[in-house]
Amino acid sequence: MTHFRTLEWTGSALRLLDQRRLPAETIYLDLGDAREVAEAIRTMVVRGAPAIGAAAAYGLALAAQRAPAERLLDALEEAAEVLRRSRPTAVNLFWAIQRVMDKVHANHALDADALRALVLSEAHAIAEEDVAVNKRIAQHGQSLVPDGATIIHHCNTGSLATVDYGTALGVIRYAHEIGKRIHVYLDETRPRLQGAKLSAWELNQLGVPHTVIVDGASGFVMRRHKVDLCIVGADRIAANGDTANKIGTYNLALVARAHGVPFYVAAPTSTIDLSIRSGDEIPIEERGADEVACVGATRVVPEGSPVLNYAFDVTPAHLITAIITEAGVVYPPYEEGLARAVRSRSEAR
Amino acid sequence: MTHFRTLEWTGSALRLLDQRRLPAETIYLDLGDAREVAEAIRTMVVRGAPAIGAAAAYGLALAAQRAPAERLLDALEEAAEVLRRSRPTAVNLFWAIQRVMDKVHANHALDADALRALVLSEAHAIAEEDVAVNKRIAQHGQSLVPDGATIIHHCNTGSLATVDYGTALGVIRYAHEIGKRIHVYLDETRPRLQGAKLSAWELNQLGVPHTVIVDGASGFVMRRHKVDLCIVGADRIAANGDTANKIGTYNLALVARAHGVPFYVAAPTSTIDLSIRSGDEIPIEERGADEVACVGATRVVPEGSPVLNYAFDVTPAHLITAIITEAGVVYPPYEEGLARAVRSRSEAR
Repeated sequence: MTHFRTLEWTGSALRLLDQRRLPAETIYLDLGDAREVAEAIRTMVVRGAPAIGAAAAYGLALAAQRAPAERLLDALEEAAEVLRRSRPTAVNLFWAIQRVMDKVHANHALDADALRALVLSEAHAIAEEDVAVNKRIAQHGQSLVPDGATIIHHCNTGSLATVDYGTALGVIRYAHEIGKRIHVYLDETRPRLQGAKLSAWELNQLGVPHTVIVDGASGFVMRRHKVDLCIVGADRIAANGDTANKIGTYNLALVARAHGVPFYVAAPTSTIDLSIRSGDEIPIEERGADEVACVGATRVVPEGSPVLNYAFDVTPAHLITAIITEAGVVYPPYEEGLARAVRSRSEAR
Repeated sequence: MTHFRTLEWTGSALRLLDQRRLPAETIYLDLGDAREVAEAIRTMVVRGAPAIGAAAAYGLALAAQRAPAERLLDALEEAAEVLRRSRPTAVNLFWAIQRVMDKVHANHALDADALRALVLSEAHAIAEEDVAVNKRIAQHGQSLVPDGATIIHHCNTGSLATVDYGTALGVIRYAHEIGKRIHVYLDETRPRLQGAKLSAWELNQLGVPHTVIVDGASGFVMRRHKVDLCIVGADRIAANGDTANKIGTYNLALVARAHGVPFYVAAPTSTIDLSIRSGDEIPIEERGADEVACVGATRVVPEGSPVLNYAFDVTPAHLITAIITEAGVVYPPYEEGLARAVRSRSEAR
């Protein structure tokens, strides 16, 4: 649907668009084994909860391809473990790995070539479903986006964060595609600037009117301009609706609440983790100081000054107006609606 | 009090520490006329409300030195106008220019050399008083900083933002100097990163324990860590207590309120503008897109994506727990207390 591909299977490798080089350069990397995929996830060559889930599934396909028949199952278990350790917060990673490994375990009696084909086919299914799921999220989200809406968006949740189309940015682009006259303020999203670098790059290509702001400006933009809604993605949604997402999301949700601006989360049901009750249980990744201390070649924090770099924060459910999934829009209280959305996914398969 | 000087009179020039080069390089610029001073203020060689006030006063001293006797008064009026146009939000700039020009008008019958000496002496007085005022702010602020306090600070309000010592950062360093065991989270303060570049550099030199965070992390830091108070400076305080300060201040104030964390403003009475009733009347500077779009040599926003770059925002008085001035701590409702603080300044002179 876009003329770049976040991730693509070449027949023998996983091809990833190196998102660390955007918007300056469009460079693709071909990865040949699961360890390389795990490293690409860790270093954020590929990022975004749905995208890293699909990448990990293809990582298992690579592990299956390379392993000799006699230790195929062991190699898959090892690859699954390496991939699981790449990043801790986005549950889609664990969900995708588990989905492939469940298929493997249910079919362990197959011969090696059949099992290799099965793993690859499951990875393809995860990737294809992601695109379809995003389109459904985009459609369900339209009831929440009025014509003429001014929207604030945080981080990147577009084609680059998914296999294609996007979650929150999918809702936004679909609104534009069907003719709603929208304007989007993009939080630049420090430290890695996914809003400035990636979301602006995507909306530029799609022709969606937008303006980049620093993260600290969202409140003043709400005071000075009419803002109709905020919409963000998610890395993990607890059973009660508490949502882990890119650092800065929680501040935006608090600012939106203070201004009476609706705050929406858009995410596939694979982002919902019913095994944990609340956001307190979500593991929050801390990343290296250099993400904050250095921007490109420029060091901005003096040597000797410590940095604390939480990659995500948790927005409590009470600040979230609704959660948009492929199964429909879920409203508070979230427990029942999220459980129903997850059930509908299992039933659909 | 520190081994660098934000601004200094050399006898024939205004010497400014070029803050755009920090923390990488410590470079001083000698400016010889008012136009150069205005340009240095505009381009943020020198920044911080009290510092630009003092710099503008020395700009007038330079104008007086260079002007021939027969057009000294005209030259001063012209220089005042050029300096007033350098930046719109911080009222200290206008206050310092007015203070010097009032002195000029009251003594216009003096001969040229006497008038030149008077202008320079008034600039010196503004600079010296600023240091003394900051020390009094630092002392008054101690009642609000408990031993062991964890503090969030936004932007830079230290020696670099003033003639010396600092306002909000002055309260912080004085707490450290008298032995309180404090820890400071420094908002990096996009887009110009005064927190990361300048406040971290100052606290490093002073040995004050600190950690740099991105602006979007303040809410999650409050959830995860005990935070006792936020303290910021000000560029203009309206009669009702509404406070213009660096963009991102308003978001921090909203986040602090949501967590029940006290939010303090520290500023000299020269930052109070009793001529305007509320923050709605404060002119808010918009600066160029490149401050957001480029970090050092790195372009982070794609060409073609617009940027909105408010340099300041307005925090409404109801979010401010107290305002610390050299005349004492002012509590809500602010009208009477701020008016009294301003009166005490006039009486002191």
